[in-house]
Amino acid sequence: MNGTRAFIHELLEKPMSGEAIEQRSFDIIDKEACCNGFTVEQWPIVRRILHTTADFGIAGDVRFSGDAIHAGTSALRSGSRIFVDSNMIRSGLSIARLRQVQPEYEQGHVVCHVADEDVAQKARETGLPRSLFAVQKAREVFDGGIAVFGNAPVALLELNRLIMEEGIKPALVVAMPVGFVHVTESKEELMSLQVPFIAIAGRRGGSPLAVATIHALCSLVVQSGSQLNGE
Amino acid sequence: MNGTRAFIHELLEKPMSGEAIEQRSFDIIDKEACCNGFTVEQWPIVRRILHTTADFGIAGDVRFSGDAIHAGTSALRSGSRIFVDSNMIRSGLSIARLRQVQPEYEQGHVVCHVADEDVAQKARETGLPRSLFAVQKAREVFDGGIAVFGNAPVALLELNRLIMEEGIKPALVVAMPVGFVHVTESKEELMSLQVPFIAIAGRRGGSPLAVATIHALCSLVVQSGSQLNGE
Repeated sequence: MNGTRAFIHELLEKPMSGEAIEQRSFDIIDKEACCNGFTVEQWPIVRRILHTTADFGIAGDVRFSGDAIHAGTSALRSGSRIFVDSNMIRSGLSIARLRQVQPEYEQGHVVCHVADEDVAQKARETGLPRSLFAVQKAREVFDGGIAVFGNAPVALLELNRLIMEEGIKPALVVAMPVGFVHVTESKEELMSLQVPFIAIAGRRGGSPLAVATIHALCSLVVQSGSQLNGE
Repeated sequence: MNGTRAFIHELLEKPMSGEAIEQRSFDIIDKEACCNGFTVEQWPIVRRILHTTADFGIAGDVRFSGDAIHAGTSALRSGSRIFVDSNMIRSGLSIARLRQVQPEYEQGHVVCHVADEDVAQKARETGLPRSLFAVQKAREVFDGGIAVFGNAPVALLELNRLIMEEGIKPALVVAMPVGFVHVTESKEELMSLQVPFIAIAGRRGGSPLAVATIHALCSLVVQSGSQLNGE
């Protein structure tokens, strides 16, 4: 690479913060992909999902129940607990962002049992996935809680059963498990139930998409608060 | 949902473990997408990336340097430290899988400084992204280490500079930052350097793809070990 200048010097000569880079990214997405038939409240969610995948094709797979935005922002405002099906989601969710919505949020509000030893033990004994027992262990979180799936279709299937058979009513379900076995079925079943949801239809999904959805809901609350305060 | 049976009962009647579901997923990917011009050693990496995105379209974006598989598996066998640019990657990387390759691996071998307070402080003072200072803080990890990027193009740009200007030689670079600003440039620059790499060309990438790449390299080592032992 003799004589070639490292690209980063261009950035260092015109410094941009992480926030400025994010805003420029959003501007690019707005210019290239907005708004694909989504409402003005849905689009910021879709935009952040596009931001985290850099794949505009996934916009056509995003599904909202009619009440999803209101239900999700209300649950966050009231500090509802958040079940997540992967430690990557727990790690990616920003407690600082959650606290901008509801100062009471702390790490303990984000519940993930998939790596617990008792859950692993049950999986070994039964030959079933750990994610199933992680949902069962978190059962009391779901009524009124936010349920976030970015990994495990079996976890979503068990939540569907709790809704169908045991009358559990989550405040919002973020239904974005990814993969090839039981994935499409898990989402179609969820979307047939009478609960607020934001979903990625089909096989695609993933932990970053689920995190992006919650972060976008947080931003909606913060921005609407700013507008109410005339900022 | 009166009269409708929850789908999970079909799974419970024919139990499948997480491992069995993963294997069935790999079989589906092999059937629908194999092997797109990749070598027999590259394909398991690509397959796991497809598994984690459920998007066959991304196969065309995966790039390998000629020595990437050998370099990556050798580095894992020798217990090289692993720099990661996001806590989602640190959380997703399985220490158990790493230990199957090299029993000395423990959590401390996976280095991530992006959430450190001193790094955040420097970002505030300079108006530059935290990921830049997270790389600088990890400088001594990169020579002979594995460098994994699934988030921050600025982090990769700084590594490129270390390679170009300071003679740093990583064992392997997993170059999969995602986004719209500096992302394509960061990967093109890296791929022009004389270092072993596995990359996603273009804007796409993400933490799960980076984790999948390391996990697939671990599986290659474990499987080659089984073959050597005649298992």
